Formats: sequence, C-alpha cells, structure tokens
Amino acid sequence: MASSHHASSRKYIALSALALLFGLLIGVVIGYFAFSRGTETVTVPSCGDACQEPDPDIFNKLVNEMKASNIGDYLRKLTSVPHLAGTPMDLENAEYVRDEWIKYGLDSAKIYSYDVLLSYPDSNEHNLVQLLDEHGNINFTCAIEEQGLRDDEKVENIVNPFNAYSGTGNITGDLVYVNYARVEDFDELEEYYPDLNLTGKIFIARYGKIFRGNKALHSEQRGAIGLIIYSDPADYASDDATDVYPDAWWLPGTGAQRGNLHVSDHKGDPLTPGYPAKDYAYRSQVEDAPLPNIPVHPIGYDDAKMFLRELSGDIVPSGWAGDLGVTYRIGPGFNNANRKVNMDIHTRNEQRMTHNVIGFIEGAVEPDRYIILGNHRDAWVFGGVDPSSGTAGMMELTRAFGKLLKEGWRPRRSLVFGSWGAEEYGLIGSTEWVEEFVQNLAARTVAYLNVDIATSGDFTFVAKSTPLLYEAIYSATKKVTSPEDSSKSVYDVWLERYPPDSGDLPPISSLGSGSDFAPFTYRIGVPAADLRYRHNPGLGISSYPVYHSVYETYYLVEAFIDPEFNRNLAVTSVWGELARDLADSIIIPFNCKDYAEQIQLAVEDLKSKFESEMRNEGIHFDAVDSAAANFTSAATSFHQRIASMELNDAMKIRRINDQLMSVERAFIDPLGLPSRRFLRHVLFAPSVTNYYAGSAFPGIQDAMYKINENLDQWDTVKQQMAVIAFCIQSAASTMMDVVL
Amino acid sequence: MASSHHASSRKYIALSALALLFGLLIGVVIGYFAFSRGTETVTVPSCGDACQEPDPDIFNKLVNEMKASNIGDYLRKLTSVPHLAGTPMDLENAEYVRDEWIKYGLDSAKIYSYDVLLSYPDSNEHNLVQLLDEHGNINFTCAIEEQGLRDDEKVENIVNPFNAYSGTGNITGDLVYVNYARVEDFDELEEYYPDLNLTGKIFIARYGKIFRGNKALHSEQRGAIGLIIYSDPADYASDDATDVYPDAWWLPGTGAQRGNLHVSDHKGDPLTPGYPAKDYAYRSQVEDAPLPNIPVHPIGYDDAKMFLRELSGDIVPSGWAGDLGVTYRIGPGFNNANRKVNMDIHTRNEQRMTHNVIGFIEGAVEPDRYIILGNHRDAWVFGGVDPSSGTAGMMELTRAFGKLLKEGWRPRRSLVFGSWGAEEYGLIGSTEWVEEFVQNLAARTVAYLNVDIATSGDFTFVAKSTPLLYEAIYSATKKVTSPEDSSKSVYDVWLERYPPDSGDLPPISSLGSGSDFAPFTYRIGVPAADLRYRHNPGLGISSYPVYHSVYETYYLVEAFIDPEFNRNLAVTSVWGELARDLADSIIIPFNCKDYAEQIQLAVEDLKSKFESEMRNEGIHFDAVDSAAANFTSAATSFHQRIASMELNDAMKIRRINDQLMSVERAFIDPLGLPSRRFLRHVLFAPSVTNYYAGSAFPGIQDAMYKINENLDQWDTVKQQMAVIAFCIQSAASTMMDVVL
Repeated sequence: MASSHHASSRKYIALSALALLFGLLIGVVIGYFAFSRGTETVTVPSCGDACQEPDPDIFNKLVNEMKASNIGDYLRKLTSVPHLAGTPMDLENAEYVRDEWIKYGLDSAKIYSYDVLLSYPDSNEHNLVQLLDEHGNINFTCAIEEQGLRDDEKVENIVNPFNAYSGTGNITGDLVYVNYARVEDFDELEEYYPDLNLTGKIFIARYGKIFRGNKALHSEQRGAIGLIIYSDPADYASDDATDVYPDAWWLPGTGAQRGNLHVSDHKGDPLTPGYPAKDYAYRSQVEDAPLPNIPVHPIGYDDAKMFLRELSGDIVPSGWAGDLGVTYRIGPGFNNANRKVNMDIHTRNEQRMTHNVIGFIEGAVEPDRYIILGNHRDAWVFGGVDPSSGTAGMMELTRAFGKLLKEGWRPRRSLVFGSWGAEEYGLIGSTEWVEEFVQNLAARTVAYLNVDIATSGDFTFVAKSTPLLYEAIYSATKKVTSPEDSSKSVYDVWLERYPPDSGDLPPISSLGSGSDFAPFTYRIGVPAADLRYRHNPGLGISSYPVYHSVYETYYLVEAFIDPEFNRNLAVTSVWGELARDLADSIIIPFNCKDYAEQIQLAVEDLKSKFESEMRNEGIHFDAVDSAAANFTSAATSFHQRIASMELNDAMKIRRINDQLMSVERAFIDPLGLPSRRFLRHVLFAPSVTNYYAGSAFPGIQDAMYKINENLDQWDTVKQQMAVIAFCIQSAASTMMDVVL
Repeated sequence: MASSHHASSRKYIALSALALLFGLLIGVVIGYFAFSRGTETVTVPSCGDACQEPDPDIFNKLVNEMKASNIGDYLRKLTSVPHLAGTPMDLENAEYVRDEWIKYGLDSAKIYSYDVLLSYPDSNEHNLVQLLDEHGNINFTCAIEEQGLRDDEKVENIVNPFNAYSGTGNITGDLVYVNYARVEDFDELEEYYPDLNLTGKIFIARYGKIFRGNKALHSEQRGAIGLIIYSDPADYASDDATDVYPDAWWLPGTGAQRGNLHVSDHKGDPLTPGYPAKDYAYRSQVEDAPLPNIPVHPIGYDDAKMFLRELSGDIVPSGWAGDLGVTYRIGPGFNNANRKVNMDIHTRNEQRMTHNVIGFIEGAVEPDRYIILGNHRDAWVFGGVDPSSGTAGMMELTRAFGKLLKEGWRPRRSLVFGSWGAEEYGLIGSTEWVEEFVQNLAARTVAYLNVDIATSGDFTFVAKSTPLLYEAIYSATKKVTSPEDSSKSVYDVWLERYPPDSGDLPPISSLGSGSDFAPFTYRIGVPAADLRYRHNPGLGISSYPVYHSVYETYYLVEAFIDPEFNRNLAVTSVWGELARDLADSIIIPFNCKDYAEQIQLAVEDLKSKFESEMRNEGIHFDAVDSAAANFTSAATSFHQRIASMELNDAMKIRRINDQLMSVERAFIDPLGLPSRRFLRHVLFAPSVTNYYAGSAFPGIQDAMYKINENLDQWDTVKQQMAVIAFCIQSAASTMMDVVL
C-alpha cells in the first residue's frame, strides 16, 4: 500500500503538476488573448507617444526650479559691462550664452553670425550739436557724453549718445520746434502757421509717442536739413526735477536716448533685404538703403533747454509745451536772430558681424515642430532693462528646462531659444536668421514667444500678440502666482490693473513692431506674442524714463523696478508655461474663434472709419463681410471638430495641428503690402506713420491716409479690399475638413 | 484506508485543482505580461495604418480594369462637338465630367468657375487678311475658315482660325518675311540686311520652334504693325503635298493653327494676376494686361503662298526657306511695288466664365496630402489630340480608380483630379484654382501629374518633369507593358527609341511651360511631370501637323496616331501607376539625389557658357558650387537615413515625408525672378524667349542674354548668383535632420 499509496500520491502529484501545467497553458492563452490583444486592437487604437497626454506636473516642476535671485544674478553678470552689437563684448556674451546652454543640458547651442551694416559714432571726431553766436563762434556745445552718476556708469566702452544710421554732415541753420515730429504735428504746424517755411531748417523734436525713425523720416520729408531729438521732462522725468536717477527712476538732465533710425518694410540688414547677410550675399549700395540722409542726433534735456529757452516765433499750440520750465516757441531761429544751430555729425555706417545664439531642445514626438522663445542680447549700453532683463529671465528658464531634461522630461515638440544680435539696429539678428532658414521656419514653427524687456515697471504683466495665442496667454497667466499678491494669479492682477473696455478679459494689444517677433509674424505668418511687466500707463510716459540711456543699469532695476526680481520671475514663468503648453499639448492650443472675433472687430472699425467715403467710390464691404462670416463659421466648426475628436490617431492629430498652423500663414501675401513688399501680413502690420504701433488692414489704412490729397490711392484701396477678402477666405479654407 | 485513500485522493484532487487554478493564474499573468505587453511596447511600436505597406496587387487591378476601347469611346464622345473655353459646350462637358466622376464613385466632384478674360473672333465681322492691288482694291482674301474635308468637320460652332488676345485694327503695309520670328531670326536679319527698316511693316512668320506669343512679342518689339503667322509645309506637311489629311496626318493647305498670344510671367486670367478671378477680384485695365497691341492672325499655307510667291527683296538666308515651292524672299513689299497687305482684325477680348472640375478620392491615412492629376478639357475645336486624348485617358483612369474604391481599396493619400478650363488661353483654369487655394495646395500637394495631350504620335512614351520624380517615372514605365511589343515595357521601348546622350536612362526633359503644371511648379514649388506618347523627333517637325486646326478629330487619332488606343492606355497606365505609387508609398518616392545631379549639371552648363565672362566682372561660382556640394551631400545623407529607418512610427514617417515635400518648395523665391515676379522657381522657368522651352537658372540666363548691350544687367547677374546659392543652400537645409 505504501508503494501503492506512494504510487497513488505520485500519480496525484503528477496530476497536480499536469493540472498546474495545463492551467498555466490555458492561463497563458487567456492572458494573451483576453487582455492584451483585445486591448490593443479594439479599445486602444495604436498611437503610441503621439497620443500621450503631457505630464501634468511639469509646470510646477519648472516654476519650482526657477529662483528670482538667480535672475538677479544673471542680470548683474549681463549688465556688468556695455555690450553693444558688433563689439567684442557682444561676441563674448554670445559665447557665454552658448556655453551656459550647453552646460544646462540643452541638446545643442550654436552661434549663427551675419555680416551686416551697423552704425557707430566716429571714434576720432565727436558728434557736435552747438549754438553759434552772431559771429559764428561757438556759444554752447551739447554734452558729448552722459554724466557718470554712479560708479556703475564710469566704465570703458560706453558708446556716446547717437542715432544709428544718421546721415553725416556739418550743417548750420535756424531751429524749429516740431513737438513729437508726428504727422499730426506737422499738420498742425501747417494749419496754424501757414507762412512758416520749414525747408532748410534744423528741427528739434521731443522723443516719445512714435518711433524715432519716423520722426527723422517725417522731418526729412518736410525739408529739414538736420534733426535734434531730445527727451523732455514732461515725457521722461518727474515734475520735481531733482527726483531723478540715481535717486529715482526718472531720467536726469544729462541722459540721452540712443536708438536707430532705420525705417523700412524689411528691417534686418539694410543692405541685404529679403536674403541672409552671408558672405555670398548680394549687397545693395548704402546710398540705396532706406536710411536717413540728414544728420540726426539725440541730446538730454539740460542741453535742450539751452536752445529752447532762446527760441523765437509764435508760442506753441496747446499740448506742445513740455516741462522744461521755459516758454515753448515754434521758431524759426532765436531771439537773437543771428544765432544759429550747428550740427557736425560723424556717425558712420560700418559692416560688422553680429551673432545669434540658437539653443535647441529636441521634441520627443514632433521634433520638427518648433516653439521659439526669443530675446535679443545686444544693448545700447548696459541694457539693465532692454534687453538684459529679458536675457536674465531666459537664462534662468533655459537652466530650468535643462534640469527637467536631465530628470528625464522631454517636450513633445522642440523648444528653440534665440538670443538675437543687433536688435537695436532694426531687428537685424532675428531677421537675418529668419531669412536664412525661411523655408524650414515657415514650415515648422508653431509660435514665436518674445520677451525683449522683461520688466520695464512694477505695475502689471501685459502682453501683445496675434489673436490665436490669446487663450493660451490667459491660461498661462492664470497658473502663475502674482508677484504682487501671492493669493492671486498674474492674470487676476492684470485684470484688476488693466480693466477691459469691453468683455471681461484683460486687453491684449496687437503686435506693432519694435522687437524680434516682427520677422516671424510679418514675413512668414508665425503667431507671436511679446510679454513683459510694465509701468502704470496712467503715468502718461512713452517708455520707462531712462530708456536707451547709460542709466539703464542693474542698480536701476534693483532699486526701482523689480527689487526682488520676482516680477521678472513671473514674466519668465508665464513665458515658460506658454512655451510648455504649446510644446506639450497634443492639440496646439490656438483658438481660431478669437481670430474670427478680432477680424470682425477690425472690419467694423474699418467701416466706422471709411465706409461712407468708400461707398461714394463704389467700394463695398460685401466680399470682406462674407469672407469674415465664412471665417467665423469655419472657426466654429473647426473647434467643434477638435473638441469632439478622439485623440487616438497620430496622423489625424498631426493633420489638425497642421491646419491650426496654417491659419495665420494664409494671411501672408507673397506680394506684400503696397509699397512695403517685405511686410506680407495683410491683416496686421506696423503702422506706416509709427513703426512701434500696430495697424489692422494696413493696406487699406495706408491708402486711405489723406486720400483726398492722393486720389490715385483709390485704386489701391479697391485692390486691397479684394486682397483682404481673398486672404480671409483663404484662411477660412485652411480650417475646413480636408476634402476640397 | 479507503476513506483515508479517498480523503487522500480528495486531498490530491483539491491539490490538483489548486494547482490548476494557480497555474491558470500564473499563466494569465505570464500570458498578459510576457507576450502581449512586451510585444506591444517593445518589439511592435504602435503605428497602425500609418505603417501599413501598400497592397501590392493594386497596380495589376488598376491596369486590368482599364480598356483601350473605353478610351476610344470616351474620345469619340468628347470630340463629337467643338468645346471651346467659355462656350456652352465647355460647361456641358464640365457637367458631364462631374456627373461621370460621381457615377464612378469618387468621393466628390465639383465645378469651380472663374470669371476671366478670354478672346474670340467677332461674330459679325470677319477677320480679314488681304492682298491689295495698286489701286487699293482687293486682289486676294485669305480663307475665313478651314475647308471641311470630312463630315466630322462640317458641324456648327467651329471657331474660325484666330489668335486669341490679338490686337484689333485695320492696317495696311508692306510685308516682311521673318522666318520663325525668333530672336536669332531678327539678329540674322539685322546682320545680313543692315539697311532693312522693319518699323511700320507687317511681318509674316512661320509657325514652329517657339511659342507664338513670343513671335508676336518679338515682332511688336521690332516695330511691326501687324503679324501674319502661317504653317509652312516644311514644318507641318509632307514633302508630297497631296499626302495630307484626311489621307495622312499631315496638315492640308487650308489648315491654320489657332492659339493664344498671352506672354506674361503670370499666365492665368490676364486681369487678375496673383489672385483668383472671383466676383470680388480687383481687375486691372485690359490696356495694362500683358497682351499684344498689334493685330496678329494665323493662315494656312495655301493662302501664305499667295503672298510669299510675290515677295520682293533679297533671297532669304540659308535655313529660312520653307517648302512652299516658291523662292523665299525677305521683302519688304512685292514685285509689284504698289501692292500692299491689309489686315482687318476684329478679335475681341471678353470676360466669360470658365470651369474646372475637381474630383476627389480621400486618402485613408493622410487625406491632407494630395497627388493631383490634371488635364485640361477645353479645345480650340474638337481637340482630338489636344486635350481630349488626355481627357479620354483621365475618364478611364478615374472610372478604374472608382471601381477599386468600390472594391474596398482606398489610397493612403488623397487623389485629386483636375479637369481644367481655358488652358488654351494661357493655363487660365488651373492658374486661377491654384491662386484660390494657394495656401492649402502649397502646404499639402505632394506632386502634380499632367497629361495634356496623351498621344500626339506613335513613336514612344516621353516625360518632362522636375528631377524629384525621375525615379518614380522610370519605375512606373517599367511596370507598364509597351503597346508596341508585349514582351517589353514602356520603359524598354522608350530607352530604345530615345537613347540617352550620356548615362543609361532615357532622357527626361525639363518642364518648360505650355501646360497646366506651370502654376503648380513655378508658383508654389510642387514637383510635377507631364506625360505623353509622341511622334518621332527625327521627323523634325515642331508639333504634330494638324495641331490646333479643325482637323484634330477622332478620325485623325484613330486613323493615324493611335488606332487601337493602346498607346493612350499605356500613357494612362503610367499616369495611374505613378499617382498610385505617390499616393500609396509609406515614404514618398522622391529621389533628391537626382535633383542634386541635375543641379550639378546645370551649374556646369552655366559655367561652360558664362564663367569666363563672369570672372572678368569679379563674379565667381564659389558660393553656388559650395551650395550645390552641400545639397548633394545632404541628399545622400537624407536618403541613407530614409533607407535605414524603421517604418514603425507615424510621426517620424510624416516628418520624413514633410521634408521630402519641402525640397522643391525651397526653390521658390516669393520675390520671383527679376522682372517676372510670378515665376518664382529660381532653378527652372520657361525661357524668356520661348515660353514652351525650359531654362535652368533663368534669372542668370535672362540677365546674361545680350549683356554686352545691357551692361547694367551685371548687377542682376550678381544678385541672382547670390539668390541661387541661397536657395540651393536653403533646399539642402530642408533635408537635414531636424535639429537646427
């Protein structure tokens, strides 16, 4: 029995083993078919990483990694010496940025250099603006340089105040005061003083309201032989003139605003419009470049007072007087009629190298889709605000992204960081780079996010952007804590301090120009935004007071604008989150319905301005209205389609995203605006009378301007109405389902 | 014991059951993890349809479905009545095509209409070309219409021979014979007869060698007040003049070649350059359109003989005499010096609707990628060859694709079929459609495949194309059986009959212009091909003899060109297979290395023509050479990367395909060629002196033309050398790995 028992138990053990084996086999089969295959082929269509929702923790990780104090440290480092475009320090800074980015762990960081036309004061002969007495002798000479008020400003290699691309020459003449040298100022002069002959005079204009290049252009067009631009205390200083830098953030009397005068449709290198300024480039003659022919020079208000207090002629119209404490008169000439103004300007154009640094974080899923973050690196002097506050933020942001990379994160799409050279000379570095890589950038760029000045004041966050990005900007600002009140978001404070005229969202203004988003948006139709923390618009000043002067120092920022650098951190956090959202979201977070609304508003605005006048010429809005309605309904359907789609098909996701990217591109007309062929966005452009400001339907606005004096412009109006209708219709077609 | 035995066996049974259960559990776990999950996440990355290899049987199914006899039936139907653009029959034909396509099962078929400037003889006043005697009385009047030689040609609505867009007017003058009115003909006239004054004369030129619009342009530039164009037997008839249609395919003496004179860079509607001719379009003045100002009219050789036999002056230079059997003289004027020629031309421009039909088969995986197959539908009269042979093939091809659709096939990418209107007036229908949908077409079109004339002779298949398509064309022709020899492929016979000058492939020529591929390639950079079966080039004729005459009938094709319609079937099969290959292949079958080779050859060609002359002006090829070398090496690496990639990632596949689509686009310069802004492809363009012919580096070739007489052109040469270097470099950058 024992043996039998043993045999029996062996039999049962064998049976059990067999059962185990059999169970195992069946189990494997069940496990194989019941769970895995079924799951794979039926309920989870294959999509892989392309359908992976982004990691929800990245925003917090990114923000937690960044420290305001680091931003302060970067700013101190960046502002320690002047770093003007085309100088050795510009290249040194570029190399520093590149090396840091490599250190942070970006996938690559490279320098892209271009040989471009820049402009500098002559190192041997000073630029002189002088008052001559009745004998032609020098009565007074304006300061050559700004006074050093703190040790910070007493360093080498500070470029004296000048206007880049000024004409050269030694001229003498009577002075005329032209207020801000806006078109409306000259109109007023003509209306009030019809006998005033402006031809052959030297103009003096105050800085503010419009881009200085337009001041020079308008002056040259009105017959000026030279232009002096000064900063009036009314626009740049406190009422109490002693309350100035370094005791306050207001401009002291010796401060002068540097800046370029390059007014053209193309920006970028003046000699290579449309193409990159590489060694093989064809360069046009300097004489043919769109640069002023007359000498133009900036001075401070201490010096300006020496001229304006002695000016003769009529008292200025209402609104023209500044705060110099003198009686503002028009001129021409002085109370002592034999006195003249002399300008002896030696500012010279020179071909030099400028350098962009491009950093790259390759996307895990769609490496060929770029979210580009840009900031220029070149400064007139120390660049405490412009642009090094932005550069400091960018360094901290790239460091934090690098940290996330090392921890294993990688964005879905690629992040590209652009540190531009020679922005101050007319967006040169960014424009040349866009020109060099135009084909790839136009095909692959999702959005361009600019921070030039991160903090120009302590009032609130603000944004300029194309309409597709509105929603993403609001969303990012809602996630970032306000530097003013930790119980609120950046969005909350923005809404409080910038209450909307209508609706319930803080206003986002149109882009205008004035920084490196311009080539991306106006040349190739890339949706773009420009972010910053700014001063209270209630102050009524044109910019932060020491703008482009030697007093834009680290001290200025730390003492008056952003003592803890937490405003900068807030802007940088919004910037980072906006980029992350655009890079990581399965569906690009563009809202085409916002674009539809802005188009409708812009059409209404155009109608309210010009409809009756146009009707008299037989021009109707029917086609534009119909296109706008089609765009609106296409946008609505498109977003319904997106909302209801299942995110389980890589090709379908890519297709929808390609359509989202195509909308803004459709507004690009390769023929460009009338007379401005490199400005190709037919809905938005920098205003023709003020490059800083934005203009909707610029082709129409430009042509309607003083149309009664230029009746042949009606033809352009008709043509542009058709172009607008076409482009809006074309943009609508990009959102349709792909069946033709 | 029994109970114990039972208990023991129960215990073992329970143990076995447990073992079974345990085994099952373990098995399920193993089955779940070991096979399925492992398989899913490691060895078979999820990709779904995007990685599905195309069905290898589709080519055979497609070709087996198509019947030559059906093509014959379609041709008979299409050529039964005249179907000139802008006439009721044009619309009827469009509706027929649309309805058939819907019947065949295409996903959609729609008519897209445009309101464009066309041109017709006046229905009340005949166009007259006459010989006046010494009293100003009519001695001889050219035939108003071609003689009906068979019943086919004796139908209503045949438009009399005319040249579309001719100037109008009643002019009288002396006649001068200018051979083909090529630039070199006028050069020869100037050289041999320096005293000959061409101004104020009426020119007579023979058809052939170059586009007739260039003949008109050259004549007007040389001072002609009118131009008569005739078809010389040397170019269009047999040596034995009786051996003509309807007894042979040669042109009879009454046959005259219709055709348009629209020479411009934009083609399309003359009044709406750059934008679609929709109701809201801005239309320029007819006077400003690039159309001839002088009357131009075509006649047959019977009539031409009446003038040429009496012409006085010097005997023509060698090569100028045709086969009229008279002594060819230059003129001016006649042996009877008081005789004059009179032209009274009433051809009028008129705005009319033209219609495109667009058929659509939506791609299963990438519906937003288009392979477009196009053929124009409008004919001067019956269009037996031009274009209805192509239309007949297209109908059979769409029917076959429809059949495959019904059987469950669907291409990976979308197939788009374009049946164009008003091609004969200057590619108008296709150009307007490209202009209307430019944004989507530029972003989404993989390739454009044109068949205008499917069969213009019985010699061999030939192709014109951009280099990216060479390999795909060779591959398709190798799969299709030759209509000449069923043991050979179309490729084999092509290679036999068109032996290459160098290499071992039958030559594919550059596109030139002359059909609807032009707006796709030259405006938006879409790789394109044009396919046909042609006559023996050894015949030395400019085109098939009855081109654009009333004798282009079904009978002509059946009797002399393609009796069994199997040549048409061969072309149609190549067309279909090429489209299928482009639509179905996971990786788009473009070969960038072929482009590299063509660029290198074109550069060598340019050097051999101009290098020494350029060197004297300080212009070097360094940058172009370097760009071409970069392009070549980028192409090589790119294809190595493609060859070694695993096709298991949808986004990666799309990315590579996007890069392949981007290469040709990079040659598009939005600024266009110098003075030809709508021709934007910097590598290839229609020649400026002959719109039919292709020109490589057209910006250079145009500027170098007679540069010794136009020294300011050197600046354009310099500028274009830089543009070419830039564009080739830019195209190279599109092939690089996506890291910037």
